[in-house]
Amino acid sequence: MHAGAKWLSFRKRCVISWQVWEDYMLKVGLLGAGRIGQVHAVNIANNPRSKLVAVSDVHSPSAEKLAAAYGAEVRTSEEILADPAINAVLVATSTDTHSDLIEAATASGKAVLCEKPVDLSLTRAEACLEKVRKTGQPVMIGFNRRFDPNFAALKAASLGGEIGKSEMLSVTSFDPAPPPVSYIKVSGGLYRDMMIHDFDMANFLMGERPVTVRAVGSAIVDPEIGAAGDVDTAVVTLTYGDGRIAVIKNSRRAVYGYDQRVELLGSTGLLQANNMLENTVVKSTTEGVVSAKPTFFFLERYMPAYAAEWEAFVAAILDGTELPVTLEDGISALVLAEAATQASQTGKAVELPG
Amino acid sequence: MHAGAKWLSFRKRCVISWQVWEDYMLKVGLLGAGRIGQVHAVNIANNPRSKLVAVSDVHSPSAEKLAAAYGAEVRTSEEILADPAINAVLVATSTDTHSDLIEAATASGKAVLCEKPVDLSLTRAEACLEKVRKTGQPVMIGFNRRFDPNFAALKAASLGGEIGKSEMLSVTSFDPAPPPVSYIKVSGGLYRDMMIHDFDMANFLMGERPVTVRAVGSAIVDPEIGAAGDVDTAVVTLTYGDGRIAVIKNSRRAVYGYDQRVELLGSTGLLQANNMLENTVVKSTTEGVVSAKPTFFFLERYMPAYAAEWEAFVAAILDGTELPVTLEDGISALVLAEAATQASQTGKAVELPG
Amino acid sequence: MHAGAKWLSFRKRCVISWQVWEDYMLKVGLLGAGRIGQVHAVNIANNPRSKLVAVSDVHSPSAEKLAAAYGAEVRTSEEILADPAINAVLVATSTDTHSDLIEAATASGKAVLCEKPVDLSLTRAEACLEKVRKTGQPVMIGFNRRFDPNFAALKAASLGGEIGKSEMLSVTSFDPAPPPVSYIKVSGGLYRDMMIHDFDMANFLMGERPVTVRAVGSAIVDPEIGAAGDVDTAVVTLTYGDGRIAVIKNSRRAVYGYDQRVELLGSTGLLQANNMLENTVVKSTTEGVVSAKPTFFFLERYMPAYAAEWEAFVAAILDGTELPVTLEDGISALVLAEAATQASQTGKAVELPG
Amino acid sequence: MHAGAKWLSFRKRCVISWQVWEDYMLKVGLLGAGRIGQVHAVNIANNPRSKLVAVSDVHSPSAEKLAAAYGAEVRTSEEILADPAINAVLVATSTDTHSDLIEAATASGKAVLCEKPVDLSLTRAEACLEKVRKTGQPVMIGFNRRFDPNFAALKAASLGGEIGKSEMLSVTSFDPAPPPVSYIKVSGGLYRDMMIHDFDMANFLMGERPVTVRAVGSAIVDPEIGAAGDVDTAVVTLTYGDGRIAVIKNSRRAVYGYDQRVELLGSTGLLQANNMLENTVVKSTTEGVVSAKPTFFFLERYMPAYAAEWEAFVAAILDGTELPVTLEDGISALVLAEAATQASQTGKAVELPG
Repeated sequence: MHAGAKWLSFRKRCVISWQVWEDYMLKVGLLGAGRIGQVHAVNIANNPRSKLVAVSDVHSPSAEKLAAAYGAEVRTSEEILADPAINAVLVATSTDTHSDLIEAATASGKAVLCEKPVDLSLTRAEACLEKVRKTGQPVMIGFNRRFDPNFAALKAASLGGEIGKSEMLSVTSFDPAPPPVSYIKVSGGLYRDMMIHDFDMANFLMGERPVTVRAVGSAIVDPEIGAAGDVDTAVVTLTYGDGRIAVIKNSRRAVYGYDQRVELLGSTGLLQANNMLENTVVKSTTEGVVSAKPTFFFLERYMPAYAAEWEAFVAAILDGTELPVTLEDGISALVLAEAATQASQTGKAVELPG
Repeated sequence: MHAGAKWLSFRKRCVISWQVWEDYMLKVGLLGAGRIGQVHAVNIANNPRSKLVAVSDVHSPSAEKLAAAYGAEVRTSEEILADPAINAVLVATSTDTHSDLIEAATASGKAVLCEKPVDLSLTRAEACLEKVRKTGQPVMIGFNRRFDPNFAALKAASLGGEIGKSEMLSVTSFDPAPPPVSYIKVSGGLYRDMMIHDFDMANFLMGERPVTVRAVGSAIVDPEIGAAGDVDTAVVTLTYGDGRIAVIKNSRRAVYGYDQRVELLGSTGLLQANNMLENTVVKSTTEGVVSAKPTFFFLERYMPAYAAEWEAFVAAILDGTELPVTLEDGISALVLAEAATQASQTGKAVELPG
Repeated sequence: MHAGAKWLSFRKRCVISWQVWEDYMLKVGLLGAGRIGQVHAVNIANNPRSKLVAVSDVHSPSAEKLAAAYGAEVRTSEEILADPAINAVLVATSTDTHSDLIEAATASGKAVLCEKPVDLSLTRAEACLEKVRKTGQPVMIGFNRRFDPNFAALKAASLGGEIGKSEMLSVTSFDPAPPPVSYIKVSGGLYRDMMIHDFDMANFLMGERPVTVRAVGSAIVDPEIGAAGDVDTAVVTLTYGDGRIAVIKNSRRAVYGYDQRVELLGSTGLLQANNMLENTVVKSTTEGVVSAKPTFFFLERYMPAYAAEWEAFVAAILDGTELPVTLEDGISALVLAEAATQASQTGKAVELPG
Repeated sequence: MHAGAKWLSFRKRCVISWQVWEDYMLKVGLLGAGRIGQVHAVNIANNPRSKLVAVSDVHSPSAEKLAAAYGAEVRTSEEILADPAINAVLVATSTDTHSDLIEAATASGKAVLCEKPVDLSLTRAEACLEKVRKTGQPVMIGFNRRFDPNFAALKAASLGGEIGKSEMLSVTSFDPAPPPVSYIKVSGGLYRDMMIHDFDMANFLMGERPVTVRAVGSAIVDPEIGAAGDVDTAVVTLTYGDGRIAVIKNSRRAVYGYDQRVELLGSTGLLQANNMLENTVVKSTTEGVVSAKPTFFFLERYMPAYAAEWEAFVAAILDGTELPVTLEDGISALVLAEAATQASQTGKAVELPG
């Protein structure tokens, strides 16, 4: 259901004054006002049960613009974490700060939604998990694709037994264009930076961790990416204890747009989640029959997913429902990214503990 | 561009304090808090340049719920129209009040966005236009489909010459299920109530009024609709001065969902705007290859269109851009609805003045 | 089932010598060796139960080429009709000779498959029917589209109750390019020459004749067609005794190829038969997502239909199964073509006897 | 172009008597009258430039039926190979006889079209190649999928530079149902029996041999296949010298039909060849939007490909055009099948000589 409609239906049941209502809202501090922080700010502001209270960013003008846009305050991260009136923080800072901020925020008694990946270092992420567990605070990792209506519907159909027992998963995940090589150099590499989403998708759809990881990769899109020690085109094969197989294909460049598809073959059928297109117009001329391109990049494709992700986080915190993506899920994806990085470099299969 | 993104990009250029910003916003009074009023309330509230100030409805609880949801006040229509701090009103009341409210609001110096149709009576609507003209106030009619991204893209492609000179238009417009017969009886009939949207679509895409109108209709979905003097299935054929032809097909019942498609054949190609589907998942089993259904009804299909419509209204009023749908457009559609009603009843073609 | 496969399965049951087999084959005379005659020649030759014995054509080289290609003889029509060893004739001559040849062939005791239309004159066609009835010989009219696998599957689904009771039929039928004006002048006009196929499709899918016919047409593709007294773009609306409605759209020019689609809305669903594409390749680039065009024209689109049509004729004659398209069907379509021609010229609805 | 149409156009240029024509036809002996032999018999018979002269099969009734159906003679393989009037043989016998028959036929001066695979033993196949080279006779291997209009169009688009430089190939190739385990046991295993087609497709589309082969496989569809030492679900990853990557996915069971798709990502776009569907009918009901299934199995999907394959063979022999698939191609595919079998069993990547 559309967020606004849901809100209205809620309102039908519960007419209270605006002031009283505010007391029940999640008061949110946003750490990081960059591109992805801006996306989250819209959803925090538009969600009827959350309120953007404060924004921090190392780059003050970014924080100021965003705060002004939503009537929020600009503060430092430390101030936000220290404010007892803030119930939750959304961590949208650079990856190297994630573990520290998760630890600090949970230690301050706040619920956390942290952008992926948890950390580039698996060891560091596991240490973070240790500390978080002691606080008992909820931490959700921002694997937004789980909330894409298409992938969610595919998962529901699979869980509902519509294709029997799943046997083979294929994930196609191509970006429209590679990021700057300067970004590549600090990204942790394609497997940790880009394919991390697809590893989570495999975990999400297969429901368990694989037992072997194989990877082949090359820098065929841009030799400079290769010179930086990374790959831009890769295929990873995962096998599972019961014989199931998953394949993930990544390319940093699909000039026609963001290509995000999933196929799951089962004993009684096949499920495919195809691309969203910019519109439904089809033009037939002597040149052929032309449809619109896939929505361009993650902001276009996953905007509804980000809203649904936030809604799920709010519901988990306010209503006490189960967190749909946990810190453990973030670490599971990271385990696969580490293994794939190693497999790609050595050419050998990596076996994972069961 | 996504509304939130647009807003952020605007904010990049213009950082001002929240208080000052409010002075520049459109202060809106919403007349009517029913189903469609609720849709508009979401868009008024989420649009960064408009603020829902007051809501009225003959059914007070509806007005109260809606007002509470957005921090607005409940007032009478008269109070809203009398408040000089309100710049614009959105008329979402029952059709029989439209003309009166448009006249009163424009006389009070307010900009108006009024739901379709202007009136069930063409004569009354024309009288209303007369009065509005004297006030010089902007009145936009809520033909939301013009703002559907698919139809808008089709129109843009046609205007851009992508299929040469247009020759034949086909509009398929089926509702998922008929409304109650009690509604049918006061609706003005299928041509005025339902096909009015498609007449506007024809005007929008063909760029001029037709010269003849032919209509055939029957009550094949529900004989009670026939007993009430209306039809539930109809085909209208329009011819244009230059030989172009348009066909509009309506049915009150398409059990698979809201079927909203347009095809425009031109001298160098064909443009089709197809249905939006609930999601992109395709399931292949021994039963066949199953895609999702079209989005269910107008709230699902046209939610983005309503937001874009409101954005266009706000822009027209605040930025002084041209009103994308005028009161004259509302009357043009009504002219066709009247002619089709007559043609359907007499079995004869109706000729329109040039 | 593929024709060759069917033949093999037949052979599994019945192994006889080639010579004996020949005695059971339909010996066919082909009258007319033009474009459509050549199509039929391939099917007659490839069908394991028919043999092309003789070919006639007023243009001898055409007959000679075709005869040589299949080891048949060149003869005059009179010689073919007089040969008692020939069981069946396929009439693929110009329309003005159809009635005479049908009469002569049936009088000679031959089964007839005659290309559409029966005649340009309804009166003449009805006289022909009278004579044919007296001979008791089977005459099938070549409405090839009934044998298109897509339209046949749609019909089967409709008959099977898959969409409940049918309510509204839409036929889209566009040629890729208009024929020469010289052809237009002797064609009998768009309704008799081109839309005749669609009238038969309406009869085929609706299962009864309509009660009113409305038509609008114009010469918008080529003014010379208008100067020749014909139209090139037309929409016909048919109503049925029980309130059902059919719409037929014709254009002489769809530059992207042969556009042949059917939609049937019923009480529990919608059936659509879409275009066949040249291939299934889809190309995604920065320009968009490009599919192949529809198969170009009737030879490409309906080649399997022509083969199935011939197979149905052979089966009807050799196995005594019911003729799938009768001379009466040919006349029913002609009745609609006459009515549409009149409706288009007068601007008034034409009522048909029940 | 349709085969019949091509033939007619040929005839336009060359009118000769039937008897003389026969002298120019390819006289063909068919070795093997099983399922695939029957498919070839139809194409040999329907092709205007080839004539089925004789058929052999170890199971006489099969040979007799097929011979009778086309007016051919039943002979032993030895008799066929000894007959100087026969120019070409089509080898459609069991795989273990292929090498011997290819050698014998070429030694007898005949052109050969042999079904895939050349042999289950790479060593034996290479020995066969040695002998064939000495005879100078043309030998074509029946990789029918190269002649599928969709894959051929994809290849043409790729060669034409429509997606720039190719980077990543994906081949999806699922059978509708596994063969009997008794067949599996003598098949040589999935990689040699089933994926051999896909290895040839990779060679065909990538234009060179890969340098490494990785394979994972399991018997998840049917444990008895596993007990027989084979797999039924497998993914193979190929890497190329220039960094390109190919992925092949196989399953012995896709209950919805024969799933045969190819995707090729390039520097300026993506090419996809999708499944052929049984028909173009789409049914929309409350259950969803249902399209037809993919054509069931290889006989349905690849019937046009088999005809085009035969036409290409005839043209190569009679017109001296280049053989489109050589014995060397057959061996190249076998090399990959051997490597994949080894990789699947050892879990390690197999490196191939450049």
